[in-house]
Amino acid sequence: MLIVMEHDATEPQIERVCSAIRSLGLDARPMPGAERTAIGIVGNERPVDPARFAGLPGVRQTLSVSAPYKQVSREWRREDTVIELANGTRIGGRQVVVMGGPCAVESEQQLFAAAEVVAGAGATVLRGGAFKPRTSPYAFQGLGVEGLELLAKARDRFGLAVVTEAMDPEGARVVADFADIVQIGARNMQNYALLREVGRLGRPVMLKRGMSATVKEWLLAAEYILAEGNPHVMLCERGIRGFDDATRNVLDVGSIALVKRLSHLPVIGDPSHATGVRDLVVPAARASIAAGADGVIVETHPNPAEALSDGQQALPPERFTSMVGELRAIAEVLGRGLVGL
Amino acid sequence: MLIVMEHDATEPQIERVCSAIRSLGLDARPMPGAERTAIGIVGNERPVDPARFAGLPGVRQTLSVSAPYKQVSREWRREDTVIELANGTRIGGRQVVVMGGPCAVESEQQLFAAAEVVAGAGATVLRGGAFKPRTSPYAFQGLGVEGLELLAKARDRFGLAVVTEAMDPEGARVVADFADIVQIGARNMQNYALLREVGRLGRPVMLKRGMSATVKEWLLAAEYILAEGNPHVMLCERGIRGFDDATRNVLDVGSIALVKRLSHLPVIGDPSHATGVRDLVVPAARASIAAGADGVIVETHPNPAEALSDGQQALPPERFTSMVGELRAIAEVLGRGLVGL
Amino acid sequence: MLIVMEHDATEPQIERVCSAIRSLGLDARPMPGAERTAIGIVGNERPVDPARFAGLPGVRQTLSVSAPYKQVSREWRREDTVIELANGTRIGGRQVVVMGGPCAVESEQQLFAAAEVVAGAGATVLRGGAFKPRTSPYAFQGLGVEGLELLAKARDRFGLAVVTEAMDPEGARVVADFADIVQIGARNMQNYALLREVGRLGRPVMLKRGMSATVKEWLLAAEYILAEGNPHVMLCERGIRGFDDATRNVLDVGSIALVKRLSHLPVIGDPSHATGVRDLVVPAARASIAAGADGVIVETHPNPAEALSDGQQALPPERFTSMVGELRAIAEVLGRGLVGL
Amino acid sequence: MLIVMEHDATEPQIERVCSAIRSLGLDARPMPGAERTAIGIVGNERPVDPARFAGLPGVRQTLSVSAPYKQVSREWRREDTVIELANGTRIGGRQVVVMGGPCAVESEQQLFAAAEVVAGAGATVLRGGAFKPRTSPYAFQGLGVEGLELLAKARDRFGLAVVTEAMDPEGARVVADFADIVQIGARNMQNYALLREVGRLGRPVMLKRGMSATVKEWLLAAEYILAEGNPHVMLCERGIRGFDDATRNVLDVGSIALVKRLSHLPVIGDPSHATGVRDLVVPAARASIAAGADGVIVETHPNPAEALSDGQQALPPERFTSMVGELRAIAEVLGRGLVGL
Repeated sequence: MLIVMEHDATEPQIERVCSAIRSLGLDARPMPGAERTAIGIVGNERPVDPARFAGLPGVRQTLSVSAPYKQVSREWRREDTVIELANGTRIGGRQVVVMGGPCAVESEQQLFAAAEVVAGAGATVLRGGAFKPRTSPYAFQGLGVEGLELLAKARDRFGLAVVTEAMDPEGARVVADFADIVQIGARNMQNYALLREVGRLGRPVMLKRGMSATVKEWLLAAEYILAEGNPHVMLCERGIRGFDDATRNVLDVGSIALVKRLSHLPVIGDPSHATGVRDLVVPAARASIAAGADGVIVETHPNPAEALSDGQQALPPERFTSMVGELRAIAEVLGRGLVGL
Repeated sequence: MLIVMEHDATEPQIERVCSAIRSLGLDARPMPGAERTAIGIVGNERPVDPARFAGLPGVRQTLSVSAPYKQVSREWRREDTVIELANGTRIGGRQVVVMGGPCAVESEQQLFAAAEVVAGAGATVLRGGAFKPRTSPYAFQGLGVEGLELLAKARDRFGLAVVTEAMDPEGARVVADFADIVQIGARNMQNYALLREVGRLGRPVMLKRGMSATVKEWLLAAEYILAEGNPHVMLCERGIRGFDDATRNVLDVGSIALVKRLSHLPVIGDPSHATGVRDLVVPAARASIAAGADGVIVETHPNPAEALSDGQQALPPERFTSMVGELRAIAEVLGRGLVGL
Repeated sequence: MLIVMEHDATEPQIERVCSAIRSLGLDARPMPGAERTAIGIVGNERPVDPARFAGLPGVRQTLSVSAPYKQVSREWRREDTVIELANGTRIGGRQVVVMGGPCAVESEQQLFAAAEVVAGAGATVLRGGAFKPRTSPYAFQGLGVEGLELLAKARDRFGLAVVTEAMDPEGARVVADFADIVQIGARNMQNYALLREVGRLGRPVMLKRGMSATVKEWLLAAEYILAEGNPHVMLCERGIRGFDDATRNVLDVGSIALVKRLSHLPVIGDPSHATGVRDLVVPAARASIAAGADGVIVETHPNPAEALSDGQQALPPERFTSMVGELRAIAEVLGRGLVGL
Repeated sequence: MLIVMEHDATEPQIERVCSAIRSLGLDARPMPGAERTAIGIVGNERPVDPARFAGLPGVRQTLSVSAPYKQVSREWRREDTVIELANGTRIGGRQVVVMGGPCAVESEQQLFAAAEVVAGAGATVLRGGAFKPRTSPYAFQGLGVEGLELLAKARDRFGLAVVTEAMDPEGARVVADFADIVQIGARNMQNYALLREVGRLGRPVMLKRGMSATVKEWLLAAEYILAEGNPHVMLCERGIRGFDDATRNVLDVGSIALVKRLSHLPVIGDPSHATGVRDLVVPAARASIAAGADGVIVETHPNPAEALSDGQQALPPERFTSMVGELRAIAEVLGRGLVGL
């Protein structure tokens, strides 16, 4: 349940509602807003009687939130969440965003070449893995902090924002020092210690959907981050596990459209991991935007054949560039545009 | 393997190649074409040495076809197959097609009202089930031949082509008498007696992907139809079974893009069955076209709340109409247009 | 709903209940039994008031059947269905049954060698495909009627019962002339024309679960057969489609245990198709019986390396024989035994 | 590749092999054994020529290890790994182990009552969650360290070993102080920081399979632990995500049999999470042992109706006790027995 206070409600009035909530053995979450404060009740498994609060001074109305996730739901917050990055990129607003870059940061030369392609195409966010989650302990694990430093250099040089993955709480603190967006990978969607840490850090977070997570589980994972006080969360659909190895995963465009209805958080499509096949990446990127995604994250490499990881799904520069044009045109069909700088 | 003959190859030369193939215990499939005849070799599990045929009189070249499906593959036929219907609709060409109509034919009034919406929106093919495959033997099974007759009347009245499902070989013969396109449902994708029958009937066929069929299995099912001599086959992606009941199925847009590369056959998206939720149908329809589909088939009902089946996924008339406009605009972004009459 | 009549209810009393049902626009199914007649109501989507029938002469009690499947449910019939074959094999009773034989009937020599192994090991049902559903139209499709004749010869010679697949209604009539059990394959689980035909034929039927059918869909498919008047149906769990190609399918032992609770029909496990890997067949067979299956159907070939189909999952004779011993011992742990002749 | 040294090979000989490996840009892993040292080569993506090492002094033989996982494979180590716990329980040997207890530790009274049931039934390992991974941030998260202390008390009182879950590296260190086995849950199967930490801690580890992890991904996750020097790893099949919500998950008995062939590590079945339905737990437990598992872990609660979590899948005491008897009998059929104290 959500209790919305009058715009001139006083601190003691707010505190009185909170203590009324706590007296029921429940948890109160005051959320100060521009217009008015709302107070969320969490921890209740059975419905709470709104009449208990309706009469308290300063209470404007009570709203029931039926979904198991609360703060991520559209019932809790009707308007779209918009996340603004340092370079001016706004994610979740009227315009769609394109993020691009290599799977892994390999060298300054490779990263700068990729960043030049990304910026030149009109995209505004640079991706690149410094800490790489690898299925095998013997595979290339990324450049670590050196990779983060290269990302920061590329950001300064090309005016891009940077998104990169963190794999554990300690790493999240380091990543948050360097990156504009901390990415949580699919394998870690339910790594609760990590979710709580990025919730406390406050940096924008991109939470990838787990390989076989339901939409409800995904939104509940996001709720872990918001519950720690960080509202700057975007969701990323990166393909779910299917039964046909003809593609790496299955891009679930229905879930993109569904999440936009259930939640106010921005949704990004990842056609590179969803398909795993270069020729299918652009069609899947177009499908993501057509389904209502607020952006895409796409792997591109200055020379895909020489990539240390995932080369078979990286777009060559010219294909990345032409894709951005197609995405802009589809966004315009939907009354949107492309984030530009 | 495919053996391509010179354009002036004689019948005896063609026969000689065929008998050379048969002498290896294999099956020869001569395919006369506008320019030249090609002869397919099927039934070989191991590669056949092309040198055996290269020197025969009238042979122009030999092509290896590595996929297990032969006649449906792009290796076998490079240019797109275009299927032309009586009302002038061309499926698989430069323009995309919109098919619409109710889940089931319920009455003349309902069907005509739906057909009016479909035609008025600029779509050119009317869908509607006369024989309904139902999970339960006790559910409404369709109007049968009466439904077919209503479809034929609606076709004449509104200038639409008609697509409707056949569920068994006998029914296929009846459906082929009334409909422009015989639909094979997902449950029957590997009903080989039915596939062979529609292969022999020669009418255009829309083959829906089985609920958990791989792309390879789907193309091999189409191969059953082509192997009987019917090349007028379109494929329909209607969503695969997933693990999350938040949507009815998962629209596999990657498979749409993949099949367009592997095969020369047209591909149609079915966002209604793929999502099963009215609010998600239009985003999924847009995603289908954006991924490269040659058309969509969408359920619409003059009054969704009163539909005898699948009402929760049928679009109301005004939403169907606005969707057609959005699809046209996305098709134009891709250098295509919408089939019009 | 099920209306149970007194044991001495008269025909007119039964007819009166039926016409009361029909007057509600519903369908009445009288089922004469040894003790008393029960009348099922089908076709109702909303609950029917039992008071309408409770007072009619000859009515003993009314039972609500909440599942969408009616006649297959344990609510409808509490005691286990036992199917008795001509050679005395009883399926679904206290003892478990072993069915064995080659994937496909290839020749008299091959079939008789396999039948000798099967009978020698103490199994009582011979399997072998005469009509083979093959993913590719160019693969070996079985010997057809010649294969059925060989199966009948083997039955006479070795005292076994015979199970073999029918793929279409016409074929089902032929198969029913030769076989003790007509098998419906996974691809045809929702081929309703075929289900209805075997429902009318009256021969015992083994209905395999579709590749990604839910338990509810599987039981509703069985209901199609019972609804035509054939109660001699056994269900066969043959593995569901999974995401890991390390095994061909995933044997769903939980569904075996679940179906035994939801339905009175016998359940057979098929570890050969479920795993597709010879070394895993025996463990999966043991798991089937341990989970409560009423039997297993296992592929064995006198010389697996030379099998024309599925050789990689056929057990060599000695492994088949030792498996039967292990299954007997596990059955005994559960208070059951092995069907013997 | 694995290079096996002579039993009297000297340190300098071993070091010379290692530096020969490193000179190829690869990683050398010396593994001192009771009999002789073996040196693993990891990090090679292409095959290494064994002739490079065959002639070096002290080298006995070279073995190729073709699987991507190395130290967990049967190629690397042929004999079964047996893990011995403080209370004498040996896991992975001739006898199968039963682990039981509540989902979550709730109170001393509840835990002791459960432990009494577990010990009384003849099981030897007590399970119980102190740190609970919960899908919702607002659900009961476990008693934490207090729960660990209660588990330790129950261990001392009833002579049981204890298994409990750790959710992050820091928690793993605390759990390792209290528990005999550190459990890694399905959500954390690819939480590499956690895997590395339990690899360094050296305590026996039970690694649950991820919800939709392939067998290869699961074994590679185990490889992360062994690669840090901890060979005491058991694998736990807890059901994979399926498409049918009639059961919580699908117990993949084929994977149990497969992993026993691919790896020398013990495998435990978890029928409680695999089915999620009380009536199906015992059949699934029997199926696990019948498929070749080295044990099962089963939820039991002194009063399931009052459990704070997962009560619907907990066995009541008497059913747990009778299950142990059934498992013992099935183990005996397979020439095994039950671990006793």
